[in-house]
Amino acid sequence: MLKNMYSIEQLQKIISEEINKVDFGNEPSKLYEPIKYTLDAGGKRIRPALVLAACNIFSENIENAIPVALAFEVFHNFTLLHDDIMDNSPKRRNKETVHVKWDNNTAILSGDAMMIKAYGFLNDLSANLLKEIFPIFNTTAIEVCEGQQYDMDFETKENVSEEDYLEMIKLKTSVLIAAALKAGAICGGANENDANLLYDFGLNIGLAFQLQDDLLDVYADTNIFGKQNGNDIITGKKTFLLINAFEKANTETSAKLKELISNKNINEQEKVKQVTDIYNKLQIKELTETKIKEFHNKAIKSINSLSAETDKKSILLVFASLIMKRTK
Amino acid sequence: MLKNMYSIEQLQKIISEEINKVDFGNEPSKLYEPIKYTLDAGGKRIRPALVLAACNIFSENIENAIPVALAFEVFHNFTLLHDDIMDNSPKRRNKETVHVKWDNNTAILSGDAMMIKAYGFLNDLSANLLKEIFPIFNTTAIEVCEGQQYDMDFETKENVSEEDYLEMIKLKTSVLIAAALKAGAICGGANENDANLLYDFGLNIGLAFQLQDDLLDVYADTNIFGKQNGNDIITGKKTFLLINAFEKANTETSAKLKELISNKNINEQEKVKQVTDIYNKLQIKELTETKIKEFHNKAIKSINSLSAETDKKSILLVFASLIMKRTK
Repeated sequence: MLKNMYSIEQLQKIISEEINKVDFGNEPSKLYEPIKYTLDAGGKRIRPALVLAACNIFSENIENAIPVALAFEVFHNFTLLHDDIMDNSPKRRNKETVHVKWDNNTAILSGDAMMIKAYGFLNDLSANLLKEIFPIFNTTAIEVCEGQQYDMDFETKENVSEEDYLEMIKLKTSVLIAAALKAGAICGGANENDANLLYDFGLNIGLAFQLQDDLLDVYADTNIFGKQNGNDIITGKKTFLLINAFEKANTETSAKLKELISNKNINEQEKVKQVTDIYNKLQIKELTETKIKEFHNKAIKSINSLSAETDKKSILLVFASLIMKRTK
Repeated sequence: MLKNMYSIEQLQKIISEEINKVDFGNEPSKLYEPIKYTLDAGGKRIRPALVLAACNIFSENIENAIPVALAFEVFHNFTLLHDDIMDNSPKRRNKETVHVKWDNNTAILSGDAMMIKAYGFLNDLSANLLKEIFPIFNTTAIEVCEGQQYDMDFETKENVSEEDYLEMIKLKTSVLIAAALKAGAICGGANENDANLLYDFGLNIGLAFQLQDDLLDVYADTNIFGKQNGNDIITGKKTFLLINAFEKANTETSAKLKELISNKNINEQEKVKQVTDIYNKLQIKELTETKIKEFHNKAIKSINSLSAETDKKSILLVFASLIMKRTK
């Protein structure tokens, strides 16, 4: 074990402790309680752990990167809070969402405050570090909004291409992971090339992660996962799988798939079964796995090109393989 | 006329031109169109003009302050966009509000993007200036959210004291004006004491402005204003006038006022007339005018203490007297 090299679990623990220490404010309580409620619900703290992990590759001192890690985590949770209003989601992490527990206005305003608080952590950076990190954080924040808007647009858009879809998930999910890694690397003193390699790693691993999500919705081992598969099929979500099924299907299958997806009267289990049968016939699982592997390989290539010692990069390889092996 | 000293009108014009030049982005259009729509609606551009005016007191070069001015203006417009959802307002500046013209989700998300874009202007500052301006902007942003939350809380709160009310309007309105002035002064190279004096000026002039607003709702000259008075009375809003009327009224008058305010069946004009009669009997107009004068005098005192030449400060005196003399 290298001196002062942290594992992902250690970094997640550090972040959870740091979040508990933050004083977000108390009054007015309807503004601040939902912020604490949202952050108390936990989550895997992946983005902030990646900020610290990336910093740790270039520096044994990860203190510098903690405000940046908190900024990314609080920003991410803000997006969940507002997305849950927009998607009308009743639950998040087994708790009622803020707009259900309180109301829409409370969720809008406490979300706004949460975003401002996220930015606020960057205050603790030195002038030079702030000047470097601020544009990365800011550009990424706007991209995440663009991703969410495309995601909502796609619900009613007729033809969503694979390219459109990959661009959307890149913006909605990957750029934040990528920026977390890049910002962390900069806090650790990485040079520009290394920081950009980490960004690319994050982008590709984020895409792999999201496609894995699409795949697991249909093909997860229900014994492990413990919930019924096919939620995306039931809701008719345009996932990587569905988009490619339409792409590969002949006229007849395409018509059948279209009818199935829009059919609100069919038994849900039956719908999932029939759509999955089409996916199987069209080898959508294999096609998706190939794409995931492609993104994964690109991600690994970025790590290999990093100028850091092999031992220090191992945390990223561990992270990448966790993504590939996850079953839920 | 001093060399390179701008008038308020000139500064408002500069800001409008600068806003027109900004490229906020195009796609996805549902994210960016509402931002342009909101900013195109105009408004008086008071906050950004104050940023530039404060800068101009200390420097002939106001270029530095333009990104800061834009940040304040776009942030202010973001708050209006989200407030309009929360207050369920159908119109703003004679145009449909964003949540009406589009929908709630579009208003939430484009508002989020607008806030991020507001922060984004600060990117153009040098590292040292960013480090100074960022915490001012950030602290103020969270205070504005607090003010909005208190404002919503007060709708259902039984006893709102004058002190509570002044704190609310300070947070909701004054701190942004104060911070705009302080940030502008810093861009112009003001020392800390002068920057803080400008902050205090803004705080007091903002309070005077809001109380004037409360007063004009009841006592504006309808010939000039051209709309019916008493909207706050009709909606039962807890204004400075109403709060003080309850404070000064004897038990009998207090009961009558309470009955009137909560009465939804009474003819609106009659309601306004009867409440105004009570205000007149209790000399609420005079009391409010005294308070406005008090804040105004404090504001002037701050200007007098500024270390800048008298001629250079005159723009602030003009601004203060505009506030005092306004009739709508």
